[in-house]
Amino acid sequence: MKARVHVTLKYGVLDPQGKAIAGALGSLGFPGVNDVRQGKYLELDLAETDAETAREQVKAMCEKLLANTVIENYSIELV
Amino acid sequence: MKARVHVTLKYGVLDPQGKAIAGALGSLGFPGVNDVRQGKYLELDLAETDAETAREQVKAMCEKLLANTVIENYSIELV
Repeated sequence: MKARVHVTLKYGVLDPQGKAIAGALGSLGFPGVNDVRQGKYLELDLAETDAETAREQVKAMCEKLLANTVIENYSIELV
Repeated sequence: MKARVHVTLKYGVLDPQGKAIAGALGSLGFPGVNDVRQGKYLELDLAETDAETAREQVKAMCEKLLANTVIENYSIELV
């Protein structure tokens, strides 16, 4: 089973990387870029075949390693 | 208009970060993680309101800055 995980900064947390990208896009001649937020996108290939068990495993992985839950949100999509 | 961009390594390109994450998950006691691929997830807030024009703009941004098209794929989703 495959899982897709998005890890994004929580609303209100400053995103210096996003700001840098927005600035670079502006200087590269792309006007009209109001804001950019950058996060992580992970694809996990799991041996588990049961969806509910896989979701619980990935949730635990996010809580322990993949996301810093103080400043980041995560979303899990099973495929 | 908002655009969501996923930038991922092309198939076959070695992903050292993904390998490191898979290894860390294994040592944290998560068996059954066959593979992990890590990519970038970007949310762009654009002033443009026309979908087609916005898609063309974001495509050009990906080609110029957001993705290294030699080793990376990108996908654009307008919201």
